[in-house]
Amino acid sequence: MLVIGGSDAGISAALRACELDPETDVTVVLEDAYPNFSICGIPYYVSREVSDWRNLAHRSVAELEATGMQLRLDTVARRIDVDAHEVVVDGGEAIDYEKLVVGTGAVPIQPPIEGLDLDGVYLLHSMGDTFAIVRAIEERSPATALIVGAGYIGLEMAEALTTRGIAVTQMEQLPEVLPTVDPELGALVHAELAARGVEVLTGTAVDAIRPGLLVGERTFDLVLVVVGVRPNAELAADAGATLGVKGAIAVDRQMRTNLPDVFAAGDCVVTHHRLLGESYLPLGTTAHKQGRVAGENALGGSREFAGSLGTQVVKIFEQAAARTGLRDHEAVAAGFDPVTVESEADDHKAYYPGSHRIRMRYTGDRSTGRLLGVQLFGHRHAEIAKRIDIAAAAIFNGMTVDAISDLDLSYTPPLGSPWDAVQHGAQAWKRAVERERPAEAGRSG
Amino acid sequence: MLVIGGSDAGISAALRACELDPETDVTVVLEDAYPNFSICGIPYYVSREVSDWRNLAHRSVAELEATGMQLRLDTVARRIDVDAHEVVVDGGEAIDYEKLVVGTGAVPIQPPIEGLDLDGVYLLHSMGDTFAIVRAIEERSPATALIVGAGYIGLEMAEALTTRGIAVTQMEQLPEVLPTVDPELGALVHAELAARGVEVLTGTAVDAIRPGLLVGERTFDLVLVVVGVRPNAELAADAGATLGVKGAIAVDRQMRTNLPDVFAAGDCVVTHHRLLGESYLPLGTTAHKQGRVAGENALGGSREFAGSLGTQVVKIFEQAAARTGLRDHEAVAAGFDPVTVESEADDHKAYYPGSHRIRMRYTGDRSTGRLLGVQLFGHRHAEIAKRIDIAAAAIFNGMTVDAISDLDLSYTPPLGSPWDAVQHGAQAWKRAVERERPAEAGRSG
Repeated sequence: MLVIGGSDAGISAALRACELDPETDVTVVLEDAYPNFSICGIPYYVSREVSDWRNLAHRSVAELEATGMQLRLDTVARRIDVDAHEVVVDGGEAIDYEKLVVGTGAVPIQPPIEGLDLDGVYLLHSMGDTFAIVRAIEERSPATALIVGAGYIGLEMAEALTTRGIAVTQMEQLPEVLPTVDPELGALVHAELAARGVEVLTGTAVDAIRPGLLVGERTFDLVLVVVGVRPNAELAADAGATLGVKGAIAVDRQMRTNLPDVFAAGDCVVTHHRLLGESYLPLGTTAHKQGRVAGENALGGSREFAGSLGTQVVKIFEQAAARTGLRDHEAVAAGFDPVTVESEADDHKAYYPGSHRIRMRYTGDRSTGRLLGVQLFGHRHAEIAKRIDIAAAAIFNGMTVDAISDLDLSYTPPLGSPWDAVQHGAQAWKRAVERERPAEAGRSG
Repeated sequence: MLVIGGSDAGISAALRACELDPETDVTVVLEDAYPNFSICGIPYYVSREVSDWRNLAHRSVAELEATGMQLRLDTVARRIDVDAHEVVVDGGEAIDYEKLVVGTGAVPIQPPIEGLDLDGVYLLHSMGDTFAIVRAIEERSPATALIVGAGYIGLEMAEALTTRGIAVTQMEQLPEVLPTVDPELGALVHAELAARGVEVLTGTAVDAIRPGLLVGERTFDLVLVVVGVRPNAELAADAGATLGVKGAIAVDRQMRTNLPDVFAAGDCVVTHHRLLGESYLPLGTTAHKQGRVAGENALGGSREFAGSLGTQVVKIFEQAAARTGLRDHEAVAAGFDPVTVESEADDHKAYYPGSHRIRMRYTGDRSTGRLLGVQLFGHRHAEIAKRIDIAAAAIFNGMTVDAISDLDLSYTPPLGSPWDAVQHGAQAWKRAVERERPAEAGRSG
């Protein structure tokens, strides 16, 4: 078994294969020297909360090799020869395979901004990019930074650079930051950024970065462009792989491409979404799951990737924002008849010290009552992450909003309420729908 | 509609009735002057983390009355006359009803210990008991206290009294503290108590408390006996209500007793457990749910109580312990073929500061793979409470242990891992079962 790519999907595939059959010959080819790195952890290395970059590895090279896999570091795969069952790498060497797993990941989107190649302008995706930025901070001691983009990584980098004492300006083309949640919650993220000293400019596009890092009429000491990623699917496409949404490699739920004996997983493939079908959702959690499925099936299994719900959480300074499932407009597009209701509840009994309010937005289907999506915002100690996971488990199982109140959730005053916040949110949704249809609600409520 | 009892079940029934039909005449009769009090919060008032006992009320009398219900405080119900549809209270007054909800709760178990009536010996259940203990602490400044019992409330009171500067000795008859979780996790709770200065004596029974609060050869300044509760079902039983397990009032899943127009809910009734059927599980969360069902059905509804999983969490100083579903021996008794596997994982990526290990015990059915129960122990900031709730949602929906790995859970390094701890626990269970049956595991995993 050969794997191209040493990040989440590729390593997960290799690990699962080694776990299922230690006798299998598993080789992983990767472009750089950093296999199994947690790229989600990069902002915390930049901020110096993680002091040693080596700690960002989920597993060290030695740990990976102890599982039985062989790693070919600094090795770029140039061509897949499907008929010959071999992969040609830099220098012309051909590595043959019985089964191939493609985990080539994603690459940063280069927006149509003039001057992206100027000194002091950075894109952020790989450990190489990370070292370049950290070196720039250390050598040039920038006082100001512009971050173009206010998605997850943009926000985390705003926090990281602020933590390093740099005055950060964050520009977002859309009307509100964190456009993956509703603007009502995005506005709360915006307020947290502002409260921590980040200058936030929404609805603001950057056309050009001019020499001296001049943007509009202001200059910056450092510019970071983080506006998302696109699938890195060229290698597979050149070999004849069919592409799907957003140019990602088309795979079935067993992570098989259209090419014989070629699997693919992670940020380079289309993702099955449980409510939307085929979509593109480059997330580490998904890459781990898909890689594990690909590794298992490469060894003869028939496991299916169960599908994503787009569950995500991000910490912004002292707050956290999370979502799972569909937002209102996404539900409309998917053919549902959604109602979205906002509400608030305490993370634990307010009489016990340290309680925090949680802002919630529930989206459910008006006609069936089915829970479609939940978005949460609150303090980072308000168990936002695991509360969104309760909702994710509910949506995964096709529960109605009303049935959330039936869940037997835990309670003690320092850590919850007799009706948990996630149940308060469900009940607020139910009340709103009942008010909307008084004739149908009534006594059987 | 008349409700007997002003605690969780009774007030939930009254609130739901008022919410569904504000025109309904709803009266709540309660023995004391403290409706809708959070008795789970009592330890935090004793510890002074809650400074004003009034804050322990989920809602004030004024808030309750604003919903339309009438409260008859300090009113003891003496007899239910089912034929006449009336309840006779102290003084002989008869209050008539169309529908009655009995929420008489539970009373503390008085163990067979000599000297329970001595001055300085306390049972703990009501606000009256609470005031007596707080007064004793303030007036007598006890230096030492003995707590008999190491269940949830016993542990919380050990923390509360320690916080007040009292040297606490905790005695438990069983071999380990917190007997509602496996002794492997109970031992971790034990260690936390000991680390905070509580003297823990397990496997130790108290026969008698002698004058001067002499127990064995030691004297204490205060003795607290908290060894559980039993249903307070006499009033309903005297009226002809059938009793079930542990003498609790028998009800169907619509919370109807065998008596016409009489519903019952909360700590006085048998509880439908989703995996065990009829059981006795006096918990505030359950009382809220059952009360809400009773209130809705008293107004003509037909909602069913979905059932409990015995989900519980308790904070012990800086740690938390939680469980949901069945432990191994409970699963055996219920006819399953359980395997229980212990494992450990980080609450979030260890490279990000402040991570904590979570100790987990998963119980699943060997033949079907069904998840039956989960127990967790870890730091109180390790999102133990909401992680047990993910497991509770999974068991509620009949998921297999293996399918936990399919859940799309949230991830960011400060708040989780690409495979969440609850998924690590599931994978550890799966691996152990695969190792046990190598012939059946193999490549299809």
